[in-house]
Amino acid sequence: MVMDLSGFFKPTNVAVVGASRNPAKVGHVILKNLIDGGFKGRIFPINPEAENVLGYRVYSSLLKVSENIDLAIIAIPAEYVLEIIEDCKKKKIKDVLIITSGFGEVGNDVLEKKLKSKLDSYGMRCVGVNCLGIFDAYHKFDTLFLPRYRLTRPKPGGISFVCQSGAIGSAILDIASTSGHTFSKFVSYGNATQIDESDFLEYLGNDETTKVICLYVEGIKNGEKFFNVLKKVTAQKPVIVLKGGLTDEGKRATISHTGALAGDSEVFFGILEQTNAIRASSLKEMFHIASLVEKSVSFRSNRLQIITNGGGYGIISADAIASSKHIKFAVISPQTNLEIKKFAPKYMNVGNPLDLLGDATTERYKRALEVCLKDSGVDGILLIALYQTPLLTTEIVEIISESHRSSQKPIIVVSTGGEFTDLLSRSLRERGLSVFSFPDEAISALDKLIAYQLRIKHNQKTNEKKISEEKKVVKKSLKIVKKKKK
Amino acid sequence: MVMDLSGFFKPTNVAVVGASRNPAKVGHVILKNLIDGGFKGRIFPINPEAENVLGYRVYSSLLKVSENIDLAIIAIPAEYVLEIIEDCKKKKIKDVLIITSGFGEVGNDVLEKKLKSKLDSYGMRCVGVNCLGIFDAYHKFDTLFLPRYRLTRPKPGGISFVCQSGAIGSAILDIASTSGHTFSKFVSYGNATQIDESDFLEYLGNDETTKVICLYVEGIKNGEKFFNVLKKVTAQKPVIVLKGGLTDEGKRATISHTGALAGDSEVFFGILEQTNAIRASSLKEMFHIASLVEKSVSFRSNRLQIITNGGGYGIISADAIASSKHIKFAVISPQTNLEIKKFAPKYMNVGNPLDLLGDATTERYKRALEVCLKDSGVDGILLIALYQTPLLTTEIVEIISESHRSSQKPIIVVSTGGEFTDLLSRSLRERGLSVFSFPDEAISALDKLIAYQLRIKHNQKTNEKKISEEKKVVKKSLKIVKKKKK
Repeated sequence: MVMDLSGFFKPTNVAVVGASRNPAKVGHVILKNLIDGGFKGRIFPINPEAENVLGYRVYSSLLKVSENIDLAIIAIPAEYVLEIIEDCKKKKIKDVLIITSGFGEVGNDVLEKKLKSKLDSYGMRCVGVNCLGIFDAYHKFDTLFLPRYRLTRPKPGGISFVCQSGAIGSAILDIASTSGHTFSKFVSYGNATQIDESDFLEYLGNDETTKVICLYVEGIKNGEKFFNVLKKVTAQKPVIVLKGGLTDEGKRATISHTGALAGDSEVFFGILEQTNAIRASSLKEMFHIASLVEKSVSFRSNRLQIITNGGGYGIISADAIASSKHIKFAVISPQTNLEIKKFAPKYMNVGNPLDLLGDATTERYKRALEVCLKDSGVDGILLIALYQTPLLTTEIVEIISESHRSSQKPIIVVSTGGEFTDLLSRSLRERGLSVFSFPDEAISALDKLIAYQLRIKHNQKTNEKKISEEKKVVKKSLKIVKKKKK
Repeated sequence: MVMDLSGFFKPTNVAVVGASRNPAKVGHVILKNLIDGGFKGRIFPINPEAENVLGYRVYSSLLKVSENIDLAIIAIPAEYVLEIIEDCKKKKIKDVLIITSGFGEVGNDVLEKKLKSKLDSYGMRCVGVNCLGIFDAYHKFDTLFLPRYRLTRPKPGGISFVCQSGAIGSAILDIASTSGHTFSKFVSYGNATQIDESDFLEYLGNDETTKVICLYVEGIKNGEKFFNVLKKVTAQKPVIVLKGGLTDEGKRATISHTGALAGDSEVFFGILEQTNAIRASSLKEMFHIASLVEKSVSFRSNRLQIITNGGGYGIISADAIASSKHIKFAVISPQTNLEIKKFAPKYMNVGNPLDLLGDATTERYKRALEVCLKDSGVDGILLIALYQTPLLTTEIVEIISESHRSSQKPIIVVSTGGEFTDLLSRSLRERGLSVFSFPDEAISALDKLIAYQLRIKHNQKTNEKKISEEKKVVKKSLKIVKKKKK
């Protein structure tokens, strides 16, 4: 049965253990961010040495709170954590989120083991230790102890990010939010003392607001569990995995970071391959692939048509597609060719890439998009639009959005440039399009997403075939049975 | 002898042939940009159908101008270009820049050949045809027919960019300028009817304000010339080359773009390898490597020390360095180890990566930088600074800049994040530092630059050895001669 972790993402009554009056303390920042973030539940700050923090009444102990508490966020030094767990037990708190570090990652394995056995025997569920905790954009639940002016929080959307490392998670969350990407849930789970990456994956697999899961992981504690969960979840939605500690030097560093044993990379990659998880080769690529899914980019098949107003961009895109593993060039039909000739200037060649030339107008883009999207040999468009040339009016944004709305086929936009370009790219993103700055970055992300989507389709077909064959067998045997009865 | 192309970058008297009153016409935009850009020379608009454009007196023909003209910028339809060349001859104009397209790239080889033989026989020098032309940041000379609000012009600096494709060049110029990078010269040379990439390379090799040359090229017309020039120029400064048309599909597209035959990629890569040119694998990487040289990043040897406040970032950086071809891990000396222990909290491990942990203060960074830069086993620092954590005060900018100023060893900064991070990154760039958003991007650029710099050092040593051996031989023979004389 799937572990229901919703108590960690949408709790009602929350205690902050270690809520300090000192703004430099983690417990203070967590409390402040919960309040500033607009969390709708009730908050109970716990601190034996304060009466009032940020306008909230402070309780000297969990046991002094008369209301029920769903979740205790623990941000006190490691040596006091076990004691607080006792209080949690008495208070019948089921879920604890332990931010505190100073356990296995600094060689304090004994303390971490003691903690785990206590949690297990009390039937408590724990996220952490040594982590940043949880951010839920829909429920405005935010335990990240990083100030909001330094780390922009994302708006609600489809990406969920499960991250062993706090720094990687928060840096990506920050850069992604700033560039307008939207998130459902973010988890930094640290040492995975109890709840681990597989539990989160399984939970997010069933989470309706999560369209795509990103996972940064250093070590897997239970490989079999990970394999089984991953296999199940990737059938529901894409899971993009980035692994830290691939090399000997990287592995050595993981031990002091999250106490994880990074394990054999080849075995790990084998698991990803067999479970149809998407293997990202960099943080940036992980984020690029996720942004495609966020914008609902979905391919029926893999034949891509390049449309460009920059010849050189067409050429480097053609090189990138030819070097990709899973993308093919669309071949325009004779009919489409004729239709393009109707509006193309006589010095324009028709092909793939379709170079609309430096003097391409918005109207030429419009016509090219129309006829290419209609062509049954085209599964999607890589639309390169370089806005430096004045003939491309800002109306291009509406033209592209309209094509995007009215066609089932994906349009991926590539635009390189400065402020003016950024403005138009942001407009397109707001209208639901996926926009990249460089063609090779778009194509490498597309390559991995298309591989995933085609494999999923293939598996579904194989399954349907299997089921229909099984049905036939059953029908046949029924007939035999009937005949025999006769 | 090196062709002196300075007349194309810092002309005194310039004619704009085709200077139209219509703002949509190329000739109009060129004139406007020359004026708005602050060009200090004299401008003579030529147009038989206008008397006045943008406040400038218009001449009906080049022959009507009584002053001498150094350079004619030609932006009229292809069929009239030969005629204007006759006027240029009569007017004794030596340099012509032909923006006009409609030659070899659309199959009009006959016209292009006619043009070339005319130029050659008249002893004229020509940049173009089918190009964007020239931008010189120092001399404020700007023939790019792209509006300034759509394409941000860069400030004067050390990068020069030679580009066959106009679109690639302008898009990169735009994105680079916006992010604060600085340029010396930009050339879009199109079909290379006469002056080609090798001529520009050779000229920029001797150009004092050019610290690094970027070249985007589709086809090389004269391989031997290219080889010889490249070999000579890379001994003076790094040349980063991106080739379009590496695959069959890309090659096909180059023919209709700049009429170039893309040739065999392996042969091309062989040339780059033998001449010590740097081969970029993407536009972005080309630009990243150039930005390192722009900031004078120079390595004595290749042992890199990672310093980070994000464990996960340290790990993926270690993975990237271990996977690089030319970067080695620095090994901290026992003495440095002791000095780090003095200021490190007891739960901090000393190694490479040196993880200063999530609670790293500005002071901890300062001390770590000091002792690592002093260590003779460290040739450079990859400094990861994630600003999401409040303990890293904005003073970090001064700390890093001060270390950068006072040390001979390069510091490369990596910071991922949103607005707050961008602010600090911009400050660091203004103070002369090279800053990246992702560690793998920094490391792949460093890998290629370090390979170049170590090979240059090796070649210099080999040459010095050769020279000193030759001297010895000469001395010996002189002795023998003297003895014999005795």
